[in-house]
Amino acid sequence: MELEQCLKLRRDTRHFLKDDVPETVLKKALTAAHCAPSVGLSEPWRFVVVRNQQTKAILKQSFLKIRAKAEANLANEQDKLKLHKSLKLEAIEDAPIGLAVFCEYPKENYTIGTVWTDETLKWSCVCAIQNLWLSLTEQGYSAGWVSILDYDQLKQVLSVPDDWEPLGYLCIGKPATDYDGQPMLEQVGWKQRCSEPVVIYR
Amino acid sequence: MELEQCLKLRRDTRHFLKDDVPETVLKKALTAAHCAPSVGLSEPWRFVVVRNQQTKAILKQSFLKIRAKAEANLANEQDKLKLHKSLKLEAIEDAPIGLAVFCEYPKENYTIGTVWTDETLKWSCVCAIQNLWLSLTEQGYSAGWVSILDYDQLKQVLSVPDDWEPLGYLCIGKPATDYDGQPMLEQVGWKQRCSEPVVIYR
Repeated sequence: MELEQCLKLRRDTRHFLKDDVPETVLKKALTAAHCAPSVGLSEPWRFVVVRNQQTKAILKQSFLKIRAKAEANLANEQDKLKLHKSLKLEAIEDAPIGLAVFCEYPKENYTIGTVWTDETLKWSCVCAIQNLWLSLTEQGYSAGWVSILDYDQLKQVLSVPDDWEPLGYLCIGKPATDYDGQPMLEQVGWKQRCSEPVVIYR
Repeated sequence: MELEQCLKLRRDTRHFLKDDVPETVLKKALTAAHCAPSVGLSEPWRFVVVRNQQTKAILKQSFLKIRAKAEANLANEQDKLKLHKSLKLEAIEDAPIGLAVFCEYPKENYTIGTVWTDETLKWSCVCAIQNLWLSLTEQGYSAGWVSILDYDQLKQVLSVPDDWEPLGYLCIGKPATDYDGQPMLEQVGWKQRCSEPVVIYR
């Protein structure tokens, strides 16, 4: 698929069909992720594939807990709160697979590009996520990035090393809709997109 | 260009030709960036295009200051320090344009997906950067992400609002080399790539 078409088709997906995600599809998407740039060639991205339904059930509870906390921010905006409660913000139990993404901090004494902020390591992982997302789109699949989660619990449930920092959890499967080519939040009237990016010339 | 080819061709570039970057090329790349996913449809990415040579000269000094600080980490590894000093880690003054990327924190009371960590806003900006990078690659251009900078100074020099958080500075132009299809740091023997990503099944 042409890059431009792929960039436009990619959606943050919360509605999936029941079709499984073949290992070949996942493998190709992970290979795309591994093509990402990384600060100081650190390649800090680490992936945990979740297929176990019990594990997913625990993560769904984690989502519900943080979602309730989020909704406390909307206590004074009743209309918005009502709309928020109706939004489908994850597909943890219904997407065939989940992919938790972590950043492993390098053991080496010095990694190029981390002196001002070592957040650059996490940013490398995000580049990998975006590559993976585009590859899934190209293959007829999609992802939904869930960041409404207890990140400490995510680490515990998946038994990952202490120094792996979580970036979130991607629900992956075959999309049931393209939301009429819009972001889902735009389609349901939560918010409108800006027509142009903000660009200043200096 | 096919997505897969574009993902493989994309390089973090530090060596550029003198050819200018036409506005049409930059516009197309910024449009690609604006197709990125963003947490809660926040679209928090902000771009500053730098063409002014004096501004670039100040940023080059900022790079040199932080690079010197970085090299203090290698004081006990003389061979590595020598190699590090020989590395071309930026192209601030020789790339035809620079693009500083910032994250503007939303003014609204509540943005979906920011309750556990509002770093998710910066991660949205990184998705935009990766889209932009791929679009530049497709168009025969490239970028080099410079994070060895005084980020406070970057904000001051470019006179951006206080609540814009910098993610770094991209040097953009026509690449003078593809480093034999390798990351530059691999080509010069700084570090080798891992052949496969780390994937755990749970």
